[in-house]
Amino acid sequence: MSIEVVLGIDIGGTYTKFGIVDRDGSLHYEDDIETDKYKDPGQFAFALHEIIHHHLSENNNDFDLKGIGIGAPNGNYYTGNIEQAPNLLWKGIITLSDIFEKKFGVPAVLTNDANAAAIGEMVFGDAKDLKNFLMITLGTGLGSGLVVNGQLVYGHDGFAGELGHVCVRQNGRKCGCGKRGCLETYVSATGIKRTVFELLATETDASVFRDMTFSDLDSKQITEAAEKGDPIAIKAFNITGEILGKSLADTVAHISPAKIFLFGGLALAGKWIFEPTKKHMENSLLPIFSNKIDILPSALLHKNIAVLGAAALMWNESA
Amino acid sequence: MSIEVVLGIDIGGTYTKFGIVDRDGSLHYEDDIETDKYKDPGQFAFALHEIIHHHLSENNNDFDLKGIGIGAPNGNYYTGNIEQAPNLLWKGIITLSDIFEKKFGVPAVLTNDANAAAIGEMVFGDAKDLKNFLMITLGTGLGSGLVVNGQLVYGHDGFAGELGHVCVRQNGRKCGCGKRGCLETYVSATGIKRTVFELLATETDASVFRDMTFSDLDSKQITEAAEKGDPIAIKAFNITGEILGKSLADTVAHISPAKIFLFGGLALAGKWIFEPTKKHMENSLLPIFSNKIDILPSALLHKNIAVLGAAALMWNESA
Repeated sequence: MSIEVVLGIDIGGTYTKFGIVDRDGSLHYEDDIETDKYKDPGQFAFALHEIIHHHLSENNNDFDLKGIGIGAPNGNYYTGNIEQAPNLLWKGIITLSDIFEKKFGVPAVLTNDANAAAIGEMVFGDAKDLKNFLMITLGTGLGSGLVVNGQLVYGHDGFAGELGHVCVRQNGRKCGCGKRGCLETYVSATGIKRTVFELLATETDASVFRDMTFSDLDSKQITEAAEKGDPIAIKAFNITGEILGKSLADTVAHISPAKIFLFGGLALAGKWIFEPTKKHMENSLLPIFSNKIDILPSALLHKNIAVLGAAALMWNESA
Repeated sequence: MSIEVVLGIDIGGTYTKFGIVDRDGSLHYEDDIETDKYKDPGQFAFALHEIIHHHLSENNNDFDLKGIGIGAPNGNYYTGNIEQAPNLLWKGIITLSDIFEKKFGVPAVLTNDANAAAIGEMVFGDAKDLKNFLMITLGTGLGSGLVVNGQLVYGHDGFAGELGHVCVRQNGRKCGCGKRGCLETYVSATGIKRTVFELLATETDASVFRDMTFSDLDSKQITEAAEKGDPIAIKAFNITGEILGKSLADTVAHISPAKIFLFGGLALAGKWIFEPTKKHMENSLLPIFSNKIDILPSALLHKNIAVLGAAALMWNESA
């Protein structure tokens, strides 16, 4: 008997990851291609179809492909379109789920990558029993997926859940979105790098980072330095956690989630990010919310949550 | 034939307003009593029962009382309790909907006053066709009700929607909640008074307020002064609208509401509050949200939205 599966796709600016996922969240096959090799989303869908078709036929059609779930920057669940994504070569409005439905002949659904991650946690992770929770993805930027009353919050236009762009500093750091002071300019892999370089200017501590260029630094090195006691690295984590924790307290005032999950490179830093975040969130909460909201690493921290989440999005549709 | 009605109750620290409301939102009777005359919520329910019973029997029982909806500070929809309300004499956890159900022998539901206002707008006002909107009530404090996917956002514990306590200024004004810099310390009837008095210190403009005490000032007088060109009053509105507009942009990033309704004394100031709020919200929005979110006065601006909303909450239950 064939196994029912969906194709989960996580589109990033440089790479697209994808996998064949069954109802239980098992990944039967995964691979990636370079997104930016394809100037046209039609060619992109064609290439993915070739790969998947090849794989499915190699496996004697043991898999029954039921649908496609896609996580993509500026992906709009309501329309199935990618709209004005700054980090993709495909400009304007891209009717991506239509393109995939036509190419593959199965239903396709689309949302942004952070929403896909939230659905991944809800379907395959530690949010299975939660009706109200928050997913924060800490990558190059900061993404978020809000779940309220058991449903993803898409808002009136499909673009809700952009917590990376709440303002945490008036006239603060310049953000890729054009505004200043956005949360993700402080809290993200890039944000903590910027904080390290600010600290190199404001503080006098010795640090391994005094001999490193901005371009060469990645956030994993900041965790490694913190482990070795580098004072600039430790201060950078404390500042990052303080800004994240205070901002999360404001989000709690909006939706009162039972739990907050962190995912992504910065979440892998463990105590260095979780401890200051928890402390400053607690100190900033309305008393009525004190000591009842958990901040936890995603259960899918070491898996490709966006591929699993994109697949879960499709499974949710056919549930 | 008798008319089906519900009793809508809006409990405030000093006064409780109530009314008999039919399914169309018509108010057949309204009155108020002093909340703080009743040391015990049982006595309070007893007194209200006397009044309502008297009124219903005077009208030859033309009304068929189907239930009771209550809006109350720190009212928890999930439990039907008032929990730790700082402005009420009734301390701790008050099982108010239970008390009313037993006294009146009909179902009772309870939420906080701003959530009741949001439901009022949804059932009887201008949000009838909206699945995603935001209600802001500008009274002594700032209350809010969030509607997402057609449902009130109560959060995991029943206390979501406390936008009056998001932090807009690190180490800012002291708030009644114990924190500093809460939105309502700037944006509310009390907040704008505080801004007027701050401006009397920081600016040198002549102003009618230079001859007035803090205790004597109310927010209506600030509108009147603005109408007469008082520079301090006009600056106070601009600052209030700027802080509200910027904060609303952050809320839009959370839930992307189609419309934002303002209710309460400050909302009656019209252009003085709406213009700077709209301008600064637009300037602070992510480009993807630009020019698509309306800020409007509540359709129930001149009515008792909390009584109507509390009644609507009950009608919603039996829908």
